[in-house]
Amino acid sequence: MAAQEGTSNGHPIAVLNSDILPRLPSQSPLLFAAKKQKNLSFETIAKALGREEVAVAALFYGQSKASPEDVTNLAKLLDIPESKLLETEMTGFPDRGRQMEMPPKEPLMYRLYEIVQNYGYAYKAVMNEKFGDGIMSAISFSTTVEKEVDEKGEWCKITLRGKWLPYTRF
Amino acid sequence: MAAQEGTSNGHPIAVLNSDILPRLPSQSPLLFAAKKQKNLSFETIAKALGREEVAVAALFYGQSKASPEDVTNLAKLLDIPESKLLETEMTGFPDRGRQMEMPPKEPLMYRLYEIVQNYGYAYKAVMNEKFGDGIMSAISFSTTVEKEVDEKGEWCKITLRGKWLPYTRF
Amino acid sequence: MAAQEGTSNGHPIAVLNSDILPRLPSQSPLLFAAKKQKNLSFETIAKALGREEVAVAALFYGQSKASPEDVTNLAKLLDIPESKLLETEMTGFPDRGRQMEMPPKEPLMYRLYEIVQNYGYAYKAVMNEKFGDGIMSAISFSTTVEKEVDEKGEWCKITLRGKWLPYTRF
Amino acid sequence: MAAQEGTSNGHPIAVLNSDILPRLPSQSPLLFAAKKQKNLSFETIAKALGREEVAVAALFYGQSKASPEDVTNLAKLLDIPESKLLETEMTGFPDRGRQMEMPPKEPLMYRLYEIVQNYGYAYKAVMNEKFGDGIMSAISFSTTVEKEVDEKGEWCKITLRGKWLPYTRF
Amino acid sequence: MAAQEGTSNGHPIAVLNSDILPRLPSQSPLLFAAKKQKNLSFETIAKALGREEVAVAALFYGQSKASPEDVTNLAKLLDIPESKLLETEMTGFPDRGRQMEMPPKEPLMYRLYEIVQNYGYAYKAVMNEKFGDGIMSAISFSTTVEKEVDEKGEWCKITLRGKWLPYTRF
Amino acid sequence: MAAQEGTSNGHPIAVLNSDILPRLPSQSPLLFAAKKQKNLSFETIAKALGREEVAVAALFYGQSKASPEDVTNLAKLLDIPESKLLETEMTGFPDRGRQMEMPPKEPLMYRLYEIVQNYGYAYKAVMNEKFGDGIMSAISFSTTVEKEVDEKGEWCKITLRGKWLPYTRF
Amino acid sequence: MAAQEGTSNGHPIAVLNSDILPRLPSQSPLLFAAKKQKNLSFETIAKALGREEVAVAALFYGQSKASPEDVTNLAKLLDIPESKLLETEMTGFPDRGRQMEMPPKEPLMYRLYEIVQNYGYAYKAVMNEKFGDGIMSAISFSTTVEKEVDEKGEWCKITLRGKWLPYTRF
Amino acid sequence: MAAQEGTSNGHPIAVLNSDILPRLPSQSPLLFAAKKQKNLSFETIAKALGREEVAVAALFYGQSKASPEDVTNLAKLLDIPESKLLETEMTGFPDRGRQMEMPPKEPLMYRLYEIVQNYGYAYKAVMNEKFGDGIMSAISFSTTVEKEVDEKGEWCKITLRGKWLPYTRF
Amino acid sequence: MAAQEGTSNGHPIAVLNSDILPRLPSQSPLLFAAKKQKNLSFETIAKALGREEVAVAALFYGQSKASPEDVTNLAKLLDIPESKLLETEMTGFPDRGRQMEMPPKEPLMYRLYEIVQNYGYAYKAVMNEKFGDGIMSAISFSTTVEKEVDEKGEWCKITLRGKWLPYTRF
Amino acid sequence: MAAQEGTSNGHPIAVLNSDILPRLPSQSPLLFAAKKQKNLSFETIAKALGREEVAVAALFYGQSKASPEDVTNLAKLLDIPESKLLETEMTGFPDRGRQMEMPPKEPLMYRLYEIVQNYGYAYKAVMNEKFGDGIMSAISFSTTVEKEVDEKGEWCKITLRGKWLPYTRF
Repeated sequence: MAAQEGTSNGHPIAVLNSDILPRLPSQSPLLFAAKKQKNLSFETIAKALGREEVAVAALFYGQSKASPEDVTNLAKLLDIPESKLLETEMTGFPDRGRQMEMPPKEPLMYRLYEIVQNYGYAYKAVMNEKFGDGIMSAISFSTTVEKEVDEKGEWCKITLRGKWLPYTRF
Repeated sequence: MAAQEGTSNGHPIAVLNSDILPRLPSQSPLLFAAKKQKNLSFETIAKALGREEVAVAALFYGQSKASPEDVTNLAKLLDIPESKLLETEMTGFPDRGRQMEMPPKEPLMYRLYEIVQNYGYAYKAVMNEKFGDGIMSAISFSTTVEKEVDEKGEWCKITLRGKWLPYTRF
Repeated sequence: MAAQEGTSNGHPIAVLNSDILPRLPSQSPLLFAAKKQKNLSFETIAKALGREEVAVAALFYGQSKASPEDVTNLAKLLDIPESKLLETEMTGFPDRGRQMEMPPKEPLMYRLYEIVQNYGYAYKAVMNEKFGDGIMSAISFSTTVEKEVDEKGEWCKITLRGKWLPYTRF
Repeated sequence: MAAQEGTSNGHPIAVLNSDILPRLPSQSPLLFAAKKQKNLSFETIAKALGREEVAVAALFYGQSKASPEDVTNLAKLLDIPESKLLETEMTGFPDRGRQMEMPPKEPLMYRLYEIVQNYGYAYKAVMNEKFGDGIMSAISFSTTVEKEVDEKGEWCKITLRGKWLPYTRF
Repeated sequence: MAAQEGTSNGHPIAVLNSDILPRLPSQSPLLFAAKKQKNLSFETIAKALGREEVAVAALFYGQSKASPEDVTNLAKLLDIPESKLLETEMTGFPDRGRQMEMPPKEPLMYRLYEIVQNYGYAYKAVMNEKFGDGIMSAISFSTTVEKEVDEKGEWCKITLRGKWLPYTRF
Repeated sequence: MAAQEGTSNGHPIAVLNSDILPRLPSQSPLLFAAKKQKNLSFETIAKALGREEVAVAALFYGQSKASPEDVTNLAKLLDIPESKLLETEMTGFPDRGRQMEMPPKEPLMYRLYEIVQNYGYAYKAVMNEKFGDGIMSAISFSTTVEKEVDEKGEWCKITLRGKWLPYTRF
Repeated sequence: MAAQEGTSNGHPIAVLNSDILPRLPSQSPLLFAAKKQKNLSFETIAKALGREEVAVAALFYGQSKASPEDVTNLAKLLDIPESKLLETEMTGFPDRGRQMEMPPKEPLMYRLYEIVQNYGYAYKAVMNEKFGDGIMSAISFSTTVEKEVDEKGEWCKITLRGKWLPYTRF
Repeated sequence: MAAQEGTSNGHPIAVLNSDILPRLPSQSPLLFAAKKQKNLSFETIAKALGREEVAVAALFYGQSKASPEDVTNLAKLLDIPESKLLETEMTGFPDRGRQMEMPPKEPLMYRLYEIVQNYGYAYKAVMNEKFGDGIMSAISFSTTVEKEVDEKGEWCKITLRGKWLPYTRF
Repeated sequence: MAAQEGTSNGHPIAVLNSDILPRLPSQSPLLFAAKKQKNLSFETIAKALGREEVAVAALFYGQSKASPEDVTNLAKLLDIPESKLLETEMTGFPDRGRQMEMPPKEPLMYRLYEIVQNYGYAYKAVMNEKFGDGIMSAISFSTTVEKEVDEKGEWCKITLRGKWLPYTRF
Repeated sequence: MAAQEGTSNGHPIAVLNSDILPRLPSQSPLLFAAKKQKNLSFETIAKALGREEVAVAALFYGQSKASPEDVTNLAKLLDIPESKLLETEMTGFPDRGRQMEMPPKEPLMYRLYEIVQNYGYAYKAVMNEKFGDGIMSAISFSTTVEKEVDEKGEWCKITLRGKWLPYTRF
């Protein structure tokens, strides 16, 4: 399996900052080291796994679950012995959210946090009027990141799509 | 101007919880009271203003800015004397974010916060690979909420769209 | 509608501590005042509404939603004009969780918090092994409180029952 | 003693995420490593010990106490020399609660926390009316997790059962 | 009922600092105002109620429960119409702990907090060796304050006495 | 010097949980390892040192000061070369309080914290009426833990005794 | 009693910022209003009371105790009826420390906080070497502020003087 | 250079508690180890450097800057090769304040913090009246610790002396 | 004195958001109300006072000090009786920093906070190399905001200028 | 390439305090070690890279991005094999802001934080009047530090220059 090196747009690939290591499970440094060595983007890896880029990046950070097929595919793509991957916590259940300090200090992540802070009540009001009393699930949920370009420059479009869960009346 | 009463789907409209009042500017109770009295949804009000629902809800919570036309249109739609609206802080600049306690205690808003917490690093890695070093603006930014229905039930789709801002090299 | 006064076991009924008022919506003092005046327990009110006691108590604290029938029934039972109830935020969507300071200072509530603190990882491990990767919903959810008596004394049994939501693979 | 491998329902067993290690006593990595190697579920281990699954999982995380028989049984079941287990803090008294960051970032654990946050006052009011002034003990206490399946899907049922302790009048 | 004015040792009586009022239930200002007007110490009031001084002071701060006899006795002693006392939250269940900011800023209260901070682990180790795995109850609990005088000066002796609760094995 | 092994009541002795090590001075693991190896209770060690149990446990946790005689006695009792003890911070001044996270997560220690939280103002009011304006010293201070047994079970009695310090008038 | 108006150095006198009022006892606005009206400095008031300026300012902020003579003298000096002062919490015991948010936001107060932060361990080491194991009392304590002028400008000299309290050996 | 061993008053010298090491620069363990080995007090070291004791203790904790002469003198006095000292961060600029957790848990340091908390506003009011609008510098600043003995015991006197900085009018 | 209405660039003037009122001194609502009524920009007011815009805005928020001339000029410009201004805390010393919650939630203010967070250590390193060991004063300090326009759009330039204060060697 | 040793003004160069290492990416210790060994100031390095000093210092702390040319130039200037630099996270995207604890404890950095705290609302008001509703970008942003000397001493001038971003109307 020969994967495309680098990103499709000339930007460098994302690598792991070592200072976050104490907050990550043991598969993370392994996966990121191979990704760096082979110079693979998440776009390339996501295609090989048949999954979304964000889900795959989350998997590298220990925030989403790998299926047995994901493990096999990753082992092949990244040239890591599958047994070595199986010794990590990839075979367990993710302990999500622990790698983030909240509020995020990193500007890119803070902007997402700020959107929740600024528009939280507005989202709630609009969603309640559209769906009634309930929540948008963050579990039965998927998300994508897209790039759009127009004359004003580049735009990032994030889509969040979750099942609507109405409160049980009891 | 006769506006459609209630929501288009039978759910009740959103009203203001009084315990949040100390965190809101003076136009908020005025606008929400009229909205309740006339039984208008944000969908209806948004159409009358030619704006997005989330932006209009944010305006009611003092989190987005009203243009002079917005004030005129709101005054008409809500039967509030324009002069009364102009006495509030609608004519000033929003002091955003103050109505939210973070982390949000409200389950609906918490789910959005949780998405940032769980996928923050994944978003960053994917966005950096697609756009390089920078951020998605939360200012040069718009957002929508849509409802999708399929055989599995109702789905809420939130779109976040912001200008990509690369870091200046200096 | 003549409701049974007091509790069925001789303990006094629960009333509202005034120092929590700034954290509650406007229906709360109204409902609690009538409850106190008529000396009604949540057990009695729950029966009249055909709902669970915890749900009804949550409704009094603005933490669960009243249906139109609930409003009508409460108005009758508590001798509050229905129109007066409709002027409150009962007709809107609850802004849940705001009345609690976390960690709870109150010993009874702290014990529940402590159970989560002490057994959180144990619950997660057992639930993951039983259900796979996902969560127990707190929305598609119901809960009850029961009293059991044996030779060792009185026991409180709380049941939490929520829909299992598996993570979407995306 | 030949124990059943895996879980009884096909889900993988729970393993230890290495990033939580600094918050655990020295027996935890030992026990979890053997559990992983032998592919044993907490259900299987609980049966071998004659205890509840949650209690056994808590024991693995250093949150509940092992009796001498538990140590002997675990040593046999997990093929760990008993002397090695006795060198750990299993022979001491648990220092409970230290492995959790509160509020929990992990979605599954957060949902439990959220239930306390949303229904705390409701629980208190109902419990006070049923039992008088006091608390439900979290010490003289037991808990179970059960799975229920119906046409709507899978449900998780958690039972919390604690001794009622009335406040001493002094 | 003619009660002894002032304290038995010449120190002034304790009165209520008005800045803490928003954190107290409605009976607190009522009780403290009468106490001040009649210049009664907690020692005097405790004798009239047949209770301990700390319990009675806690009752004034809304932190312990008044029995019907307490209400009657207080009404008499303080010349407050019993009906007025019954309108307060004295008839409900205390919402304990809310009047304290933790860590305490007040030096006297901070010293108690500091004792827990400095000797917490030492208490735990000694108590575990004396009683096994469990806790000292703060509910099935009483406490007293005594004064001792010797040639070195005055000493304050606080006694905390609570039921030992062993952890349930489950 | 042959010391009594185990506790006088059959409960196991207290040992050190390894996850607290980064918060302790270098003598703590040394002392606790020897205590465990020799199976000595704090009661036994306290007798050998002529000190109170809590003080000795605090000394093991680096929270109280060892005199030269304490060092000599401990060296003998625990079979640790005195020179080795002198290389630790036992010869310096304790840096108290650092091993505790506040509020305590551990239920036993939390109960003590809760007593301060619930009765803080009550203690202050009673102490001010008994002693005037001042504090009970936590420095010129001693404390004991006693066990009392009656027909209702076991009771833990903690005594706190501190010098009363009046505020200087200046 | 005719007191000197203004300060002795031409700077205006200190008055009360109204936004801190909710954190102060009821005598504070009364005292500060009279101080402002009569244009009296703390230097002048301190002389009239025979006390230190800092102690008197602390008294105005409800942080130190007024003796009966202080009340009489203040009543005269400030032309406030003594009975009116006696209705406030001046006759009770100060609830110290509540008016400060920590860390202080105010630059002048932050500088004092910063001195503790920067030199805390240095002070401890030096004090331990000079006095042994103990603390400098903040209760049996006095403090002064002095002004010194030299060719480099004005210098502020604060003196803190407290009784040394050695730890009790127990 | 033969320096006086121990302190001049018979108290032991201060040594470094190892649990604070992760918060200190690399020169700290080096300096403290030599200090302990040679049994030198800060008084002795301060004399050798011609500096104040608190400044020298701060230098050992990485909180004040060493001049080249200080380095030379310390190397001689402590028998550390100067080159070894120069490899540490002594040659850089201190990163002050990082070794302290605030609020301080240590009782001695807490008392200093408490003085700021209790007297903060009083200091500000008195300083403003004496100097006008500005602050006492914590940079253009020096401090000393002195011991005073009288019939009541030992007293600790701390002097803080800083340049007065008036706010610039702009 | 006839002042220019509105801003010189067509943007509306800044007014006071009412929800921040509890954090401001009593002159703030007075000044802002007059500013709004007369539709004056800070540019206009600053010119009338001969001061910088930021200083004047800070004065409106109670964060900088008004001289007697400022009071006179403001009274004239804003048509407020000087006596009324003198009744406020304008005549006292500002209690700075209390109106801000940190970290700021407002996006504009957060960006400034973020600059400190991102570049803090870089500023320190560069400033230490240019000036030695010390700080840039925030007291002996002035600041300006300027607008620059080029082909890429509008740029905001903030200048911070403070006296360098070297640490005193003591 | 022979670079100028030391700073141009006689102050020592800035080096890395080792206690901050756990918060920095892996290139930081490498770069700082070489900087120290070669005794190079950020001024010298900035010239070699054709960048601003603050940007280069931020790059050393892992807070700004190195271009491939920067890497090549740094490798040459610092005599580090380029391959070794490429193994670090210099080739990835910075994870900004993580090395700072907020609020900063270090006095120099705190002063910058304090400026935001004291003047935040004033900046916002002035900027809104000059630019309308929006923010100054901290991304499309540059900053410089300059030294100015006059008869009063040395002054530090920091310039912050960012693109003005108006809120999108949507």
